[in-house]
Amino acid sequence: MARSRRSDSAYARAGVDIAAQERGLAEVRKLARGTFGPGVLSEIGSFGGLFRPDLTGLAEPVLVASADGVGTKLAVARLAGDFSTVGRDLVNHCVNDILVQGAVPLFFLDYVGAGVLDPARLVELVRGVATGCRENGCALLGGETAEMPGFYQPGDYELVGFIVGLADRAALLDGSRVRPGDLLLGLPSAGLHTNGYSLARKVFFETMGLGLRDRIPGDPEKRRLGAWLLAPHLSYLAPLRPLLGHPGLHALAHITGGGLTDNLPRVLPPGMVAEIRFGSWEVPAPLRVLQEAGDIELEEMLRVFNMGIGMVAVVAPEAAREVSQRLAGAGQRFQVIGSVREGERGVIYDLGLTAGTVDATP
Amino acid sequence: MARSRRSDSAYARAGVDIAAQERGLAEVRKLARGTFGPGVLSEIGSFGGLFRPDLTGLAEPVLVASADGVGTKLAVARLAGDFSTVGRDLVNHCVNDILVQGAVPLFFLDYVGAGVLDPARLVELVRGVATGCRENGCALLGGETAEMPGFYQPGDYELVGFIVGLADRAALLDGSRVRPGDLLLGLPSAGLHTNGYSLARKVFFETMGLGLRDRIPGDPEKRRLGAWLLAPHLSYLAPLRPLLGHPGLHALAHITGGGLTDNLPRVLPPGMVAEIRFGSWEVPAPLRVLQEAGDIELEEMLRVFNMGIGMVAVVAPEAAREVSQRLAGAGQRFQVIGSVREGERGVIYDLGLTAGTVDATP
Repeated sequence: MARSRRSDSAYARAGVDIAAQERGLAEVRKLARGTFGPGVLSEIGSFGGLFRPDLTGLAEPVLVASADGVGTKLAVARLAGDFSTVGRDLVNHCVNDILVQGAVPLFFLDYVGAGVLDPARLVELVRGVATGCRENGCALLGGETAEMPGFYQPGDYELVGFIVGLADRAALLDGSRVRPGDLLLGLPSAGLHTNGYSLARKVFFETMGLGLRDRIPGDPEKRRLGAWLLAPHLSYLAPLRPLLGHPGLHALAHITGGGLTDNLPRVLPPGMVAEIRFGSWEVPAPLRVLQEAGDIELEEMLRVFNMGIGMVAVVAPEAAREVSQRLAGAGQRFQVIGSVREGERGVIYDLGLTAGTVDATP
Repeated sequence: MARSRRSDSAYARAGVDIAAQERGLAEVRKLARGTFGPGVLSEIGSFGGLFRPDLTGLAEPVLVASADGVGTKLAVARLAGDFSTVGRDLVNHCVNDILVQGAVPLFFLDYVGAGVLDPARLVELVRGVATGCRENGCALLGGETAEMPGFYQPGDYELVGFIVGLADRAALLDGSRVRPGDLLLGLPSAGLHTNGYSLARKVFFETMGLGLRDRIPGDPEKRRLGAWLLAPHLSYLAPLRPLLGHPGLHALAHITGGGLTDNLPRVLPPGMVAEIRFGSWEVPAPLRVLQEAGDIELEEMLRVFNMGIGMVAVVAPEAAREVSQRLAGAGQRFQVIGSVREGERGVIYDLGLTAGTVDATP
């Protein structure tokens, strides 16, 4: 595989254990090979990864690509001394970003940056990436490992991912099929996924003075803060892939930074508004705790956090029954959280019992 | 284009000028659109970039992908207060990495990370990336901009790039065609390209006490250190693209981290050694100055720096004349720097006048 090591330091002089580094890189290559399917042509030592896509049956193949990072969830991983989960976060985030365009993943590349690379940490990070790739049927085709002394703080690791997927042009999802009356199906998230960590850390650690091993106050499930904060970003590929190409699936929106407020309008045509019934799903208890302790306006919460909804499927009313049955059959929970109607493009929140609305049109 | 902004900070509270940020992102999108060719399908606001590759005439299309960063050349850019050049560095590095596999670029994605994003800096960085993309006929299809307070030091920017190119399987270059007797054509680099900056900075700034505006002592061209250190990584796509598929072009090696010593063996079959005549090209004066002032062994120099050679073409002797003429016709300078012979896979340096050799087999 085309994983190289970028290092500007003079190892021998710095007393770095080169043998340990080489063992780490060998392990990383092995992890990557474990993700290889029939499309992968490259092996160790080449300059770039080679992938032969299966274009059978595609009238007009379109590549869909996306880049992302994990944000300051990395700071939580560091604090917990556990970098085993952020790799899956990264892969799943990227998979969802191309899934919402109708694409299934082909391959993934990662970038790991650090001041000084601890080989054990590198392996831990890449093992998570490789696990995420395997779970999504995606090859870890290559990557770059950069050691930049003085650039990163000791113990910090940057993790960036890049994904390429494939779709037939006619099956691309771009929101143009969305119609007034379409239903919004919300699929639950697991924790914060990969957004809102700077604010969450501030409130939980500074305002509330909690530690990672503390149980979240007021959480009926009595989860420990660290476990909740590090819960991996979910991939929605498995339940949604069988619905790609279904004429009743009009759009998908991945709820990331910007929340429902900024992400739903990305798949709405002009002249349509998403009306969300705010009480239609249960906002996870830790988010309610966070809002109260941080004294954060609901409008800001809805822009910074996913509020318990990681993906929204926009579905034609006549297909709702079938789509619902197929999601349920795949073991995927969901709620109807609202609908589309004519109006200025944006999101309106119907607060239900409080009889108010939040107009959060961007 | 699919450029999103990842930020975990609560902007409004932190007093960040959101309007300036939005103007910066709008400018970034405009720069990206300036790189779009007919293959690009996506526009603003989608979750991932869409690219429809032209597969005409390809029997078995293969995607070639690579990820890279700029290393601590970024620290020089910061010191110089000039982030306008590192974007081209990044693109050209990535272009060369897939070129040596026989691929031409389709599209590129970037990742910019910072503690607090200065919109002007972001635009400066992405302008360089977009310029590099245009120069290489490659679409800047998307990217991610991550603001991670406390993770990066104030004023520091991380820059990561991902490239995807295309080749027909039969025309892939993988070194398997290399034969004993093949000639090694060295194409000159411009400065350090993107490798060896930690060591170079240490010697020039600390050992020699030079500043960026100082002229490099002993350099007959009297270059200023800053200009030399920030000279952009060259792309070899324009002169080499017409030779892709030529039966006499047996391999290409991009000379990056690891130098000639580690990169040439990547394209040698087992049982073949590259013998390099060390005096056959002129090592740039600043590198000689650096070696002397830093008291660095030649063997280390050859592993850390490109030593004035940015790309090596491995050419069949019977094709050498034609390849040479075509390179010269394209205005590309080169030197025959050695040849391939049977032996243990690696690189042997013939030091010529000093009558010694450096056996730097990895």
